[in-house]
Amino acid sequence: MRTPAEVRAAIRARELDEPTAALAPGFAQANLVVLPEADAFDFLRFCMANPRPCPVLEVLEPGTVEPVQTAPGADLRTDLPRYRVYRRGRLVAEPSEVEWREDLVAFLIGCSFTFERALLAAGLPVRHIEQGVNVPMYRTSVACRPAGRFSGPLVVSMRPMTPDEAVRATEITAPFTSAHGAPVHVGDPAALGIPALDAPDYGDAVEIRDGEVPVFWACGVTPQAVAQASKPELMITHAPGHMFVTDLDEGDRAHG
Amino acid sequence: MRTPAEVRAAIRARELDEPTAALAPGFAQANLVVLPEADAFDFLRFCMANPRPCPVLEVLEPGTVEPVQTAPGADLRTDLPRYRVYRRGRLVAEPSEVEWREDLVAFLIGCSFTFERALLAAGLPVRHIEQGVNVPMYRTSVACRPAGRFSGPLVVSMRPMTPDEAVRATEITAPFTSAHGAPVHVGDPAALGIPALDAPDYGDAVEIRDGEVPVFWACGVTPQAVAQASKPELMITHAPGHMFVTDLDEGDRAHG
Repeated sequence: MRTPAEVRAAIRARELDEPTAALAPGFAQANLVVLPEADAFDFLRFCMANPRPCPVLEVLEPGTVEPVQTAPGADLRTDLPRYRVYRRGRLVAEPSEVEWREDLVAFLIGCSFTFERALLAAGLPVRHIEQGVNVPMYRTSVACRPAGRFSGPLVVSMRPMTPDEAVRATEITAPFTSAHGAPVHVGDPAALGIPALDAPDYGDAVEIRDGEVPVFWACGVTPQAVAQASKPELMITHAPGHMFVTDLDEGDRAHG
Repeated sequence: MRTPAEVRAAIRARELDEPTAALAPGFAQANLVVLPEADAFDFLRFCMANPRPCPVLEVLEPGTVEPVQTAPGADLRTDLPRYRVYRRGRLVAEPSEVEWREDLVAFLIGCSFTFERALLAAGLPVRHIEQGVNVPMYRTSVACRPAGRFSGPLVVSMRPMTPDEAVRATEITAPFTSAHGAPVHVGDPAALGIPALDAPDYGDAVEIRDGEVPVFWACGVTPQAVAQASKPELMITHAPGHMFVTDLDEGDRAHG
């Protein structure tokens, strides 16, 4: 079991370039969103208006790359396995490192990988870990609350379980309010406007076994769908599933 | 018992001009901070870095006065009993209504009056309600985490109780994370740099009886002490103890 600092060092050294589920279990993982300062206040208000998909763990000082509250010593330019660069809403690159500018502001947002250790400890299935693939994620027809220039659809992650397991998973994940908390929906993809579970918008499809239903959690990839809808000049994010591993205990509350 | 809307209407009609403790019990009350948009992102980051004194309930769209999430139909220019206006850190007015500008952004921040119904229901003393005065509040020697242009001392409110009652009050208030949560200190004013309990910096002194100790909670007047230290061009706030009464249930979590 590597510590968060060891995971980040391996990523920085390019020894590790894969989805981060199950790495450094017991520690909080985070979605990354980077925006020019001119858009930062609108985006922070967007997060506060949509705490289910966007629970804020830390907002960095403009121009800085070290998350002093959640992972002192880390460098957000190099310590994630893969990034995405959106320009005016269009995905233009997926690099393994990014450049920084003086006017860039980084946001770290809680991630559902954080509660997967607790699900596994309770004997519940986490299919993408079992299958060694990335978690499946879907754009939904559910609109986020807009704030300033930002609006767009909710994105969800999905883990298949039996209905009884889904109840237990709800109990377990509800207290993880900084990691999306309880599911937003159980059972019917159509209720969220998802046409086909075997064609996720991000990540990989996973097997759904007899007697299982899809269980959907709000997802920190939501800002990427929002970027596509709202077209800010620039948004840099993690690549879906390729998270920032923080030093925060899994149970720590957002900015608590 | 008046509803929150009835309390706000009475305030707007100037029938009520007093501290709001014990009004509309069961509903969340809020501190108000209004800043020019140029300072708003720094201040919101300050709140996120200091969630104990500054749990954000709502951030309004720039230029707007209706808190659509926490009290639809209300007007922040008229619906608080008293305001304070700070210019470059100096208190220059304490009006009963305020003017608005296109570039002003309003923040509503949780208030400890919110959990007082629960304290009373548990048979615990809330001395300022008993005595019909404003809650005592003190500037401390504890520094908040700075963010951008904002820095300054933590302000606390104080309620005297026996040590056993303080333990019970801690259990009761801890879950109220959007209303400052558990006490930040019990017992020794000097540990917080408070020279004299009978001379509060805001509000009124209350009686401390034999066998009682002071119990201190983080307070949403902190931004006013921060304004005095950081000297923004303009900050409009509520007058200490003269809160905005929201429609939120007392138990609702910040922007949940």
